Amino acid sequence: MDIELYMQRLGRQARAASRALAAASTHVKNTALLAMAAEIRRSRDDLLTANDRDLDEARAAGLDAALIDRLTLSAKGIEAMASGLEQVAALPDPVGEISDLKRRPSGIQVGKMRVPLGVIGIIYEARPNVTADAAALCLKSGNAAILRGGKEALHSNQAIAACVRAGLATAGLPETSVQVVETTDRAAVGRLITMPEFVDVIVPRGGKGLIERISREARVPVIKHLDGNCHVYVDSDADPAKVVPIVENAKTQRYGTCNTTESLLLAESVAAHFLPDIGHMLVKHGVEMRTCPTAGALLRDAGIPASLLTAAVEADWSEEYLAPIISIKVVADLDEAIAHINTFSSGHTEAIITENYTRALRFLREVDSASVMINASTRFADGFEYGLGAEIGISTDKIHARGPVGLEGLTSQKWIVLGNGETRA
Amino acid sequence: MDIELYMQRLGRQARAASRALAAASTHVKNTALLAMAAEIRRSRDDLLTANDRDLDEARAAGLDAALIDRLTLSAKGIEAMASGLEQVAALPDPVGEISDLKRRPSGIQVGKMRVPLGVIGIIYEARPNVTADAAALCLKSGNAAILRGGKEALHSNQAIAACVRAGLATAGLPETSVQVVETTDRAAVGRLITMPEFVDVIVPRGGKGLIERISREARVPVIKHLDGNCHVYVDSDADPAKVVPIVENAKTQRYGTCNTTESLLLAESVAAHFLPDIGHMLVKHGVEMRTCPTAGALLRDAGIPASLLTAAVEADWSEEYLAPIISIKVVADLDEAIAHINTFSSGHTEAIITENYTRALRFLREVDSASVMINASTRFADGFEYGLGAEIGISTDKIHARGPVGLEGLTSQKWIVLGNGETRA
Repeated sequence: MDIELYMQRLGRQARAASRALAAASTHVKNTALLAMAAEIRRSRDDLLTANDRDLDEARAAGLDAALIDRLTLSAKGIEAMASGLEQVAALPDPVGEISDLKRRPSGIQVGKMRVPLGVIGIIYEARPNVTADAAALCLKSGNAAILRGGKEALHSNQAIAACVRAGLATAGLPETSVQVVETTDRAAVGRLITMPEFVDVIVPRGGKGLIERISREARVPVIKHLDGNCHVYVDSDADPAKVVPIVENAKTQRYGTCNTTESLLLAESVAAHFLPDIGHMLVKHGVEMRTCPTAGALLRDAGIPASLLTAAVEADWSEEYLAPIISIKVVADLDEAIAHINTFSSGHTEAIITENYTRALRFLREVDSASVMINASTRFADGFEYGLGAEIGISTDKIHARGPVGLEGLTSQKWIVLGNGETRA
Repeated sequence: MDIELYMQRLGRQARAASRALAAASTHVKNTALLAMAAEIRRSRDDLLTANDRDLDEARAAGLDAALIDRLTLSAKGIEAMASGLEQVAALPDPVGEISDLKRRPSGIQVGKMRVPLGVIGIIYEARPNVTADAAALCLKSGNAAILRGGKEALHSNQAIAACVRAGLATAGLPETSVQVVETTDRAAVGRLITMPEFVDVIVPRGGKGLIERISREARVPVIKHLDGNCHVYVDSDADPAKVVPIVENAKTQRYGTCNTTESLLLAESVAAHFLPDIGHMLVKHGVEMRTCPTAGALLRDAGIPASLLTAAVEADWSEEYLAPIISIKVVADLDEAIAHINTFSSGHTEAIITENYTRALRFLREVDSASVMINASTRFADGFEYGLGAEIGISTDKIHARGPVGLEGLTSQKWIVLGNGETRA
């Protein structure tokens, strides 16, 4: 296969399809989504067969259990995919929304209209359900999609793509609105991320290594999610009733998610008051504490076992553990807390626990992260919790989309001018 | 000079200053802007002397008259710079604006806060006034700036930068909030656009060659303006009273601006009706017409001199003439007009002239350009005409800022969560 010609063909077809999608009515797009869901339910056995083929090959290749787990499609997973498509159909259509229409002294009315980005390239690893999710979000937001999943999931992805195409055809939309790259050649990714004439934005979903490589090599904007080194800062005016519950939820509810807190900061004046309870709560969950000398001494004095106490090294302050480990630092005050966060955070999500109005607002304004919270668990940083209805990812970039990215993040706003024959003086 | 160490130092200082700027009040930022304006007026003679030095060197180097013209600072130009700073001070501060705050079922309130991008790198050519303009827009939007002007303007830029620093000092802001790159080594640009750890976005201002090179090599997002190949489409239901005035204004008011119309499309059913009047108007302005065969025949029949009529070649449909030349094509209908524009336009600005409601709305929605207009001249696509108060450039990108970019385009929105001790279920 000539990768160059193949990718150019996909790109050209996607660009052409994107014109039809941008003009498609909400009804037509929803018809396609519901037809895809029906087709996925109807094709359950075919999907399971295709997935078995991928699983056999993965096992034969000796791939690890975690990957096999991500690769596996169950009957329940297939139903979840179908109902996910129906949920996207139920979301409001962001396309065409007009805002800020104002009359100018010249007589023209100027405003903005929300429009699709055009063509979105999604690069992901061995989770076949991403194929249906990503197709749905791109379609609903009026964008054509080129999907490049992990090579381990190729047969599953092709089977899902067939259902997606059937749904598109039912609604009278071009089948090239959603295309799955049908080669496992890595050169296809290299080409996908360097075709600005055909692809408007790349959304990589996967490990940090994948995302860093794509960002480095892309010639197209990338909506990317790197790591989540989230912080909770316990201020000198923290409400005692809120401290342990928030820290417990933020750190221990799930260890492997990007919005899990990895680092705890406490104001010097209240560290001795709060650290013992926090420490005992963390011990209960078996969480290792990597501490600054002051926090370490306070926790030792509170009887925290030495087996869970380690002196933090510089690298701990920037680490995303994704594990039952937390770094703990006592800081002088809010200024030091903000400076520490703005230096070491990955810019994902940070929370302050305080009853002090001025410090709460300063934290909100001065912390330079995608989500900044007052008196709430960092675990809330999520498209569903924020009410986006769906999420294509969480962006740690500042340009375009920041934080959880829903349908709106897959659109842009163009200017519109409503005139009555005006000319410029 | 070690460019690597020098640029890293500028970057580190800018990042540190950006923290102070993000936290600075509107009053402090405006104080700095007004102090800069006063300092520029006070330093008029120094600025003229520095500019003379640049002009002497430019003349000695045999640079062309157009460049010398752009490089020249007059007393009037200095006054315009100062009053430009005062105008930016008078604009509303975009930073800190909270929007869309909604309560979620979990109890948290989720919304967005507008915040600075951080550090902005501006790369421009030999126009010294850009130094003051760009510094003002970055400062007002709470961003630190690293400015790299054309080497021909180095002394002028340094003199302006001294006034900017004096203004910053008056307001108690770090003088490193605005830094001018003080080396003419081209490697400095190469480094500026590849330091994502220190620079959040690059705004290049200059010719297409400069912008293409920067976009190709940047490792940082670029807000860029490529060419403006703008269209006017005269629909079958165009109001005859609006056609000639809009086309005349859009094409002939100024030839060298990016929002000037370069290509005229007419619906087949009205081409014979409108082309003679349009042609005679264009003849009056000495505008050369590059036409499709149908338009050419109609214009010849209307008595347009052969000296101003040329058969268009394929390249004409994508050309930004920036000159008294226009390409003219007769199309079957709205569908062909939209398809033609979406194929050949640079995505800057397009207008339809029509009284038909449905076709007007279809044009508005389906034309994929930064500005789309109904019954108005493309010349309105401009930050001042749109009410932005100031403009750092016009973006032909779709991601982040599209079309005229004002203060808002130099900010992003982060998520904020106002909680009361909520934890995630």
